[in-house]
Amino acid sequence: MIIDEVLAQKIIQPRPLESHKGTFGRVLLIGGNYPYGGAIIMAALACVNSGAGLVTVATHKDNITALHSQLPEAMAFDLAEKNRLSEQTAAADVILIGPGLAEDELAQKTFDAVWKTVKPKQTLIIDGSALNLLAKKASIQWPTKNIILTPHQKEWERLSGLAISEQTEKATQAALAHFPKGTILVAKSHQTKIYQGNRVGELRVGGPYQATGGMGDTLAGMIAGFAAQFKSDLFETTAAAAYLHSAIAQALAQKAYVVLPTRISQELPKWMKEMSEEPLSQ
Amino acid sequence: MIIDEVLAQKIIQPRPLESHKGTFGRVLLIGGNYPYGGAIIMAALACVNSGAGLVTVATHKDNITALHSQLPEAMAFDLAEKNRLSEQTAAADVILIGPGLAEDELAQKTFDAVWKTVKPKQTLIIDGSALNLLAKKASIQWPTKNIILTPHQKEWERLSGLAISEQTEKATQAALAHFPKGTILVAKSHQTKIYQGNRVGELRVGGPYQATGGMGDTLAGMIAGFAAQFKSDLFETTAAAAYLHSAIAQALAQKAYVVLPTRISQELPKWMKEMSEEPLSQ
Amino acid sequence: MIIDEVLAQKIIQPRPLESHKGTFGRVLLIGGNYPYGGAIIMAALACVNSGAGLVTVATHKDNITALHSQLPEAMAFDLAEKNRLSEQTAAADVILIGPGLAEDELAQKTFDAVWKTVKPKQTLIIDGSALNLLAKKASIQWPTKNIILTPHQKEWERLSGLAISEQTEKATQAALAHFPKGTILVAKSHQTKIYQGNRVGELRVGGPYQATGGMGDTLAGMIAGFAAQFKSDLFETTAAAAYLHSAIAQALAQKAYVVLPTRISQELPKWMKEMSEEPLSQ
Amino acid sequence: MIIDEVLAQKIIQPRPLESHKGTFGRVLLIGGNYPYGGAIIMAALACVNSGAGLVTVATHKDNITALHSQLPEAMAFDLAEKNRLSEQTAAADVILIGPGLAEDELAQKTFDAVWKTVKPKQTLIIDGSALNLLAKKASIQWPTKNIILTPHQKEWERLSGLAISEQTEKATQAALAHFPKGTILVAKSHQTKIYQGNRVGELRVGGPYQATGGMGDTLAGMIAGFAAQFKSDLFETTAAAAYLHSAIAQALAQKAYVVLPTRISQELPKWMKEMSEEPLSQ
Repeated sequence: MIIDEVLAQKIIQPRPLESHKGTFGRVLLIGGNYPYGGAIIMAALACVNSGAGLVTVATHKDNITALHSQLPEAMAFDLAEKNRLSEQTAAADVILIGPGLAEDELAQKTFDAVWKTVKPKQTLIIDGSALNLLAKKASIQWPTKNIILTPHQKEWERLSGLAISEQTEKATQAALAHFPKGTILVAKSHQTKIYQGNRVGELRVGGPYQATGGMGDTLAGMIAGFAAQFKSDLFETTAAAAYLHSAIAQALAQKAYVVLPTRISQELPKWMKEMSEEPLSQ
Repeated sequence: MIIDEVLAQKIIQPRPLESHKGTFGRVLLIGGNYPYGGAIIMAALACVNSGAGLVTVATHKDNITALHSQLPEAMAFDLAEKNRLSEQTAAADVILIGPGLAEDELAQKTFDAVWKTVKPKQTLIIDGSALNLLAKKASIQWPTKNIILTPHQKEWERLSGLAISEQTEKATQAALAHFPKGTILVAKSHQTKIYQGNRVGELRVGGPYQATGGMGDTLAGMIAGFAAQFKSDLFETTAAAAYLHSAIAQALAQKAYVVLPTRISQELPKWMKEMSEEPLSQ
Repeated sequence: MIIDEVLAQKIIQPRPLESHKGTFGRVLLIGGNYPYGGAIIMAALACVNSGAGLVTVATHKDNITALHSQLPEAMAFDLAEKNRLSEQTAAADVILIGPGLAEDELAQKTFDAVWKTVKPKQTLIIDGSALNLLAKKASIQWPTKNIILTPHQKEWERLSGLAISEQTEKATQAALAHFPKGTILVAKSHQTKIYQGNRVGELRVGGPYQATGGMGDTLAGMIAGFAAQFKSDLFETTAAAAYLHSAIAQALAQKAYVVLPTRISQELPKWMKEMSEEPLSQ
Repeated sequence: MIIDEVLAQKIIQPRPLESHKGTFGRVLLIGGNYPYGGAIIMAALACVNSGAGLVTVATHKDNITALHSQLPEAMAFDLAEKNRLSEQTAAADVILIGPGLAEDELAQKTFDAVWKTVKPKQTLIIDGSALNLLAKKASIQWPTKNIILTPHQKEWERLSGLAISEQTEKATQAALAHFPKGTILVAKSHQTKIYQGNRVGELRVGGPYQATGGMGDTLAGMIAGFAAQFKSDLFETTAAAAYLHSAIAQALAQKAYVVLPTRISQELPKWMKEMSEEPLSQ
C-alpha cells in the first residue's frame, strides 16, 4: 500500500470536546545523553507540537536547560535518577527510547531499567542508539507487544543481520518475523517503508532535503505523539506520522534547499488542523 | 453569568499617560522547582506579556538560564534563598505560588515561608502543586483575603473533598464557603467556571486544543498580570484573564490542531490592545 | 528643543563603504549580576542591533549561557575576572556600566575597577545600580568628561539630592552643574528629557506601553551603540538614540498594549536603515 | 574573475534523490572557547543551514547549552576531551578550526591535536584565532593539501608578513606561494578576494552593513558546509559560499542598517533553493 494523505486524514480526527490532557496521552522520551543532547530536544519539539497531552523528557542533566529554553511545555529530569525514571516509565502511555541515548554505561543502565519496567499495555518505540543496544542483547524477553522500531539501514543491519544490500522487502519481512508478533518496523531510507507482519506501507513523499541530522529524531517524536493520542490501529497511526513528517518536509522544500527538522515541528499544528478537517478523498 | 468580551473590554482599559513601572504592579512568581522548570517560565511569559510592570521569578537555581534565554524581561532568583524570598514576597503587589513548585521539602519550605510573609493588602494566587500543599494543611490561618485558587478538577477534589463527579455548581459553592470570604475559585475543566461567594461566571470559549501541558501555568501567569495592573473588582479581573486566555486559544485553533501555551502569551499584547480600544458592545 | 526625527536623521548617516568592525566602535557592557542577569542581555541586544562594531559583555558567569542563547554576536566574560575586566575596559571606545549590576560586593569592586581604568578619551555611560553606587561615593574623581548618566527619577534623586517633586528643569540643570562639564543627563520619566549644560531636549514620543521592566536597559544599550559608531556631538547622538527608542515603541504600540523591550531591539536595523535614507525635513 | 551568481548556481546543484546524511558530508567545527562561545554557534548555524549532512561541534563545555538552545541539529562535545576530539577529527570530511578558539593553552593543545590527526583526504579550514596560532609556528608540516585560510587583513599580516598597506594582489599571491600548492586564501576586507595559485576571484557584492562581530564566523561555517557537500573544484566551492554570504547580506541590507550574522544563516535554505533552480545565465 501507498501511505498517503487519505490514511493521514483517517487517523487525525477532530478532538473530542470533553477532554483533558490525559485524553491525549502521557509520553516519556528518553535520550539526549552526552554529547547528543540535541536529539531528544528535537524529539520533544515534535512530540509536543503533534499534540501529545503531557510530555516528559529523561535526559542528561546538563541538557535540561537547552530543552527548556526551547520548549518549556515539556517536563525534564535527569536520566541518571533511577527512581524517577522507573516512576515516569510506569506512568507513561507511550515510551520512546533512543534519540541521542548514546551507548555508554549510563545508556546501558537506562535501557535495562526501562526494559524491566515497561508493561504489556504500554507502547514502546525504540530508536537510534537504543536499537544498537537492543542488537547487542544475547536474548530478549519483550516487555510488551506494542513495539515500534525505527532504524535506518545500518541500524537495521545490526538488528536483523541483513546487510544493507540485502534489505529487500521479502528479506525484511522474514527478519521481522523474529520479533514479537505485531512489531512495527519503520525502515528509514531515501524511500521509507513501514512493516507489520504481512503489511507493508510505502512513502511516496519526501526527498533529499531531509538528509540532515535530527530528521529521524523528529520522526520518532511525532510517532510517539501520534501513538499517545490516536487510538486507531498502531500500524496506521505510525504510518500517518511518517507520512506527515515527509509531506511537511516536501512542502517546505519548495522554498528550502535543506529542511531543518525543527522547522517540521513548527508546522505540525497547522498541518494537523488541516488534515483533521478535510473530507476524505474518494 | 457568561464571561464574555464585554467583560474583558471593561477590565482592559487604556493605560494612564502619567505612569511608570510601579503603576502596573510588582508580581512575584514562585515555582519551577525541579523537574518542572518549564511551568514557571510559561507563567512568566504570560505575566510579562500581559503587561505587569515588574515581574520577578523565584525558581530552582538551575532554571534561571532557561528562563532568561526566553525572557530577559523578568528578574529571577534562587527559590532556596530564604532572605531574598522574604524580601521579594514582601515587596510584591501580587504573589503567584505553585506552577511547577513540586511537593518536595524545598517546595514545602517555600510555601510556608511565603505563607508567613504575605500581608492582607497583597493578592495571593495559589496554583498547581501549591494547591496540594494547601490541601495537606491541618488548619489554615489565611494571610490575606485576596485569594485566587486555580485548581483543575483533581486538585479541587483534594482541596474541597468533592469527588470530581460531585463537583456541581451548588456543591462547589458550598465548599468554597469554607474558604475566606471573597476567595475566588477558578475551577478549570473543559468548561471552566469562576466563583466568588454567590457569583458564578462561565466561559463559553476555548476547546480541546487547549488540553496540553502548560496551559494552566499560562493562565495563572495572566491572572497575576491582570491582578497587578487592573484595579477593578478582582472577580471580574480574574474572569477577564480567563476569558482572554481561552479566546486567544480559540482564535489560534482556527489554524492549529493543538495550541501551545507559549503561543497564547505571544498574542497577548496585540489582543489586549484591541480589547482596550473597542467600544463596549451594547 | 524638541528631539525629533530630524535630529535622528542627522545622526544616523549612511555607513562609509571602506570600513570594518573597528570603524563602528568597540563597546563594553558591564552588568547582569545576580539576580538581574536579564538586564545586560537586553542592553546587549539593543547595542548589537543598533550597529556597534564589536560588543563585549562583562556579566555574572552564570548569565553567559542565557546571553549567548539569544545573541551569539556578543562576546561575554565573567565579571569577576579582574585582569580581563581591566583589559577589556581599556580596549573599549564606549563603556556602559550598570544594567542589572546590583549593589553587592562584586558590583562595588567592578565599579571601582572600571572607574580606575577608564581614560579621558573613552565614553562612560552610567546606568541603573551603578548610579546608586556613584551616589554613595563621598568624593568623586572623574576619569573622563565624556559622561552620560541615565537615571530614572528615584535614581536622580539619590544622585542630585533633588526630591522627585523638585526635579524641575531649572533645578535639574543646577544640580547637573556639579558634574563634570559636558556631562549628559538622560532624565527618564514618562516625559524623558536630556540635558547638557544649558541644552535641554525633550521627547514627545513614547507612552505608557513602555512602563515595563527592561525598557531602560534597552535604552542604555542603544545609547552605547550610537555613541560607539556616530562621531557627532554626543548630546545629539544620545538624543537620537532616546528618540528612536521611544519612536519605535510608539509605532509598535499601535498593535500592542505593552511593548516588550526586546521587540524594540528587533526593529532597530529596519528603523535605522529608513532613518539613514530619508531626506532631512526642512 | 568576478565571483558572481553564475558561479554560485554552478556549484549549488539540485540534490541527488538517492542520498542520505553521509552524502552531504560530516563536518567538525572547532572553537567557541571561553570567552568567545558565540563564534562557533554562529559558524554552526551557518553550516547546518547551508545543508551539511552531519555537523559536530567541539567547544568549551560551558558553551554547549547555548549552542543547543539555538541549534539542536548539531552534536556538541567538550573541546578538552582528547580522545573524542581525535575520533571526531578522524571521522570528519571537513574540519573548520578557529572561530572563537582563543589563544590560550587549551586552544594551543586543541590546535596541535587536530594538526596531528588530519589526513590528506580531509579538508581543513583555518579561521580566526587558529590563524594566529598557525602564524606562531616555527615550521609547519601540513597534514593535507586541501587547505582554506580565511584571514582578515590583520590576520593575513601575521601569517604572511605583509603589512596591511602592502597587501596588494601580487604581493598576496607571492606570499600564498609559500603555503602548500592548492591552498585557498579568502582574504577578507571590505572587498574580499579569493586566491588559489594564480587564480583570483573578487566579490562585488556586500557592504558596510556587514561590519559587525560574527560575520566572519558565519562565512567560515558556510564554507565548511559547502565544502562538505559540493564535490566541485574547491576554489569555486569556496567562492560560491563567499558570494552567497555577501549576496544575502546585501539583500537583507535593503531593509537593515546592520545585518546580523545569524540573519544570513536563516536565509540560507531559501537562497540555496533558488540558486539550485535558476537556469544559468548565458
